[in-house]
Amino acid sequence: MNRLMINADMGESFGPWVMGLDEHVMPYVDLANVACGFHASDPHVIRRTVRLAIEHGVKVGAHPAYPDLVGFGRRSIACSPDEVEDLVLYQIGALAGICQAEGTRLHYVKPHGALYNDMTKDPELFEAVVRAIRDFDDTLPLMTMAARDNRMEREIADRLGISLWFEAFADRAYDSDGRLVSRKVAGAVHHDTDVIIDQAVRIARREPLTAIDGSDLVLEADTLCVHGDNDESIAAVKAIRQAIRALETGR
Amino acid sequence: MNRLMINADMGESFGPWVMGLDEHVMPYVDLANVACGFHASDPHVIRRTVRLAIEHGVKVGAHPAYPDLVGFGRRSIACSPDEVEDLVLYQIGALAGICQAEGTRLHYVKPHGALYNDMTKDPELFEAVVRAIRDFDDTLPLMTMAARDNRMEREIADRLGISLWFEAFADRAYDSDGRLVSRKVAGAVHHDTDVIIDQAVRIARREPLTAIDGSDLVLEADTLCVHGDNDESIAAVKAIRQAIRALETGR
Amino acid sequence: MNRLMINADMGESFGPWVMGLDEHVMPYVDLANVACGFHASDPHVIRRTVRLAIEHGVKVGAHPAYPDLVGFGRRSIACSPDEVEDLVLYQIGALAGICQAEGTRLHYVKPHGALYNDMTKDPELFEAVVRAIRDFDDTLPLMTMAARDNRMEREIADRLGISLWFEAFADRAYDSDGRLVSRKVAGAVHHDTDVIIDQAVRIARREPLTAIDGSDLVLEADTLCVHGDNDESIAAVKAIRQAIRALETGR
Amino acid sequence: MNRLMINADMGESFGPWVMGLDEHVMPYVDLANVACGFHASDPHVIRRTVRLAIEHGVKVGAHPAYPDLVGFGRRSIACSPDEVEDLVLYQIGALAGICQAEGTRLHYVKPHGALYNDMTKDPELFEAVVRAIRDFDDTLPLMTMAARDNRMEREIADRLGISLWFEAFADRAYDSDGRLVSRKVAGAVHHDTDVIIDQAVRIARREPLTAIDGSDLVLEADTLCVHGDNDESIAAVKAIRQAIRALETGR
Repeated sequence: MNRLMINADMGESFGPWVMGLDEHVMPYVDLANVACGFHASDPHVIRRTVRLAIEHGVKVGAHPAYPDLVGFGRRSIACSPDEVEDLVLYQIGALAGICQAEGTRLHYVKPHGALYNDMTKDPELFEAVVRAIRDFDDTLPLMTMAARDNRMEREIADRLGISLWFEAFADRAYDSDGRLVSRKVAGAVHHDTDVIIDQAVRIARREPLTAIDGSDLVLEADTLCVHGDNDESIAAVKAIRQAIRALETGR
Repeated sequence: MNRLMINADMGESFGPWVMGLDEHVMPYVDLANVACGFHASDPHVIRRTVRLAIEHGVKVGAHPAYPDLVGFGRRSIACSPDEVEDLVLYQIGALAGICQAEGTRLHYVKPHGALYNDMTKDPELFEAVVRAIRDFDDTLPLMTMAARDNRMEREIADRLGISLWFEAFADRAYDSDGRLVSRKVAGAVHHDTDVIIDQAVRIARREPLTAIDGSDLVLEADTLCVHGDNDESIAAVKAIRQAIRALETGR
Repeated sequence: MNRLMINADMGESFGPWVMGLDEHVMPYVDLANVACGFHASDPHVIRRTVRLAIEHGVKVGAHPAYPDLVGFGRRSIACSPDEVEDLVLYQIGALAGICQAEGTRLHYVKPHGALYNDMTKDPELFEAVVRAIRDFDDTLPLMTMAARDNRMEREIADRLGISLWFEAFADRAYDSDGRLVSRKVAGAVHHDTDVIIDQAVRIARREPLTAIDGSDLVLEADTLCVHGDNDESIAAVKAIRQAIRALETGR
Repeated sequence: MNRLMINADMGESFGPWVMGLDEHVMPYVDLANVACGFHASDPHVIRRTVRLAIEHGVKVGAHPAYPDLVGFGRRSIACSPDEVEDLVLYQIGALAGICQAEGTRLHYVKPHGALYNDMTKDPELFEAVVRAIRDFDDTLPLMTMAARDNRMEREIADRLGISLWFEAFADRAYDSDGRLVSRKVAGAVHHDTDVIIDQAVRIARREPLTAIDGSDLVLEADTLCVHGDNDESIAAVKAIRQAIRALETGR
């Protein structure tokens, strides 16, 4: 069993506007998904975030998005696959250049927000993202959503020679297809730390979760997404980290 | 004597807006200064321009600028040296990533417009640009303006371990300091092709030009800047190319 | 019968990039749809365009769009109705302010590109646009696409107290629902000037067009959209103008 | 003696990023300088801010800036006077349109950040701003910095028929010219609430302040700038408001 890596979105400040407690969450994660300037971040914020990741031995991943700063990349934009390929490539390059300047390298790519969601629904978009990664550096894994059925993603990634990292969430309810329950639905987000830690541990052990309809759901996840928005979420990250470490030590 | 390389600004279209006759000028240059998205270009335009450069065996250089699309990077922005360093680095990385995806590499950096001018007046800005290049890849030369006195530029580049490529212009009048005469002054821009070719040949041979005050001016230039804006300038580029080639063959 | 007004998109240049032959088409239109800065135009271009419209006695309309400069407002963005309402209002205000400074006023609103299309498919978006207009100035008509069935648009506009101007196209083929045939389909765009003029005259007379499936289609149009992109389209505009004038004189 | 009006910058959030405690400071001010989207704010934030101002009976002023979101409008951009005129006009119009939609009107204009500073140093820029206001609505006052010598500003405003509102600061030290001491200088910013209130009261009474060189300085101010960034500054605003009210009552 590989260790379940912990990832968090980072570098989401922009100009004078601060977002996220990056300094507080960085010590507890393995992977930092760094915004690349299209939905958040700017050259200075990116560089500061890369430096912070290096200090804590955290691997830097690109977190490219649709070009939508005011909408924080959360709104789908009807880009063509070619447009997506090129804008992902541009963002990967910008971040990789800053990594190179700081003496590290890019380790993976995780699309952000609406692009992350859209690519799992549209094989042409998924393939566009994979092409961007393959053309840039085919050793970089693409992080995507673990679900009950990831055949589309696996087929495309295999065909183009890219590896995938599947991501799961400890603080969100799943439906029976292994998709996140919409935040609009009651019970979609777990707030109880015990529930969150239990879900994290089950994911780490590849034990079944209980989907919102009561069915069993096993997610084959390589990484767990956590959040560093506020003190409460930082506390949850620490607890998750400790629980996952305990699992590893107990083996 | 090294061959005088011919460079031109490229990839200055943006979204649906076309600028420059890149396809027509690319066959006649050695170096393509490719806009990086801050004053012109977008991910798709950059990629297309890099492909075009590769087709013609032209070396790609980064053409980073102040973040000023509507002003085309022609307006000084009072950025701090640190801001300049980071925004140059971001733009270099973005373009280098696209080069890498297309199987080529970045060869040099030439700042654009107001940033190009400002760095020659402000050693702190010049050093900021040099730091960005050094941290990214210290084998990349920085292209800057050849003048009578380039001691500031040489001192900084030497100290930080970066090489310089000095650039001259065949279609512009110089003052006695080897600075371009302002376009507002009559006679600042040469329109006669014979005058332009004569100036190009003098620069290539390192023979003195006549500055606007009548004094002699020798520019130690590595590269000559040409323009591909319209049919007339394309014709001038062809003639310059031919004249420089003839010099080389005649050696 | 009211005169069929001729409208064209204007002010689509941006910064140093020129688009459209505004000076050449302005003399032949009644209505200028002026880009407001979100998909094209900038404060200077807007002002120049408003002045040009005034010189030619042309009425200025707002041409608001999704915030997508690089995509020219042609890509749908999944904005909420509230977001659409506010961004339309912002753009209307910006243009209206420039009209006021130039001693004229705004006369109508025509959304651009993907927003224009999306609002005819989504009553919530249509109502959002209508709310923006109503709140700003409920005497301004909203220009929207004439189709076989405009009940949705009429119901919302009536309920909120806004008038509509229906728009038709002389150079595009229609399907039997009175929607434009996709440009991807052969025959979607008319290139023959005689065909274009014939369609313009039929629309002006409210005579049936022949839809692409051979069925009759009567469009109740208040205005005809023309283009000023190139010399050919300018020639078509002149011919259309003349044909419509001849109809009026012949009455 | 007119009452000293209290003004604060508002609506400086952008998309998902929050800045300023607008809800907490709005009850204590007379004038809200609302960002117009070029250095901060977006259509939704503007509208929300205008509504908040209306709820509290606060007058809305436009706070236009250079187009520099990432730099928050704090960096000078070498715009021409014509460019400044048009971009100020665009921003005034956008905000005025939202005011109109909300049933209020714009009351004044106060340029932001680097533009505010630059216009007091460059009569051409000052005149450009005044022209934008005059052309839009010549009854709107322009808010500018009170100094020992405001002859330039008065001459231009008088000549173009615009009124001025002079602004002073209670929490900043002045030099003997009545200019703000740079924040880089020790003692430039007052942190002691008593000192701040004393300075506010002196300004309200038009009593001399002590400039940083010990000289007396009387500022003829119409309005006092306060800040709503954090709890401390909100407390200062309340105290200033109370002190000024007490003066008025005590008269």
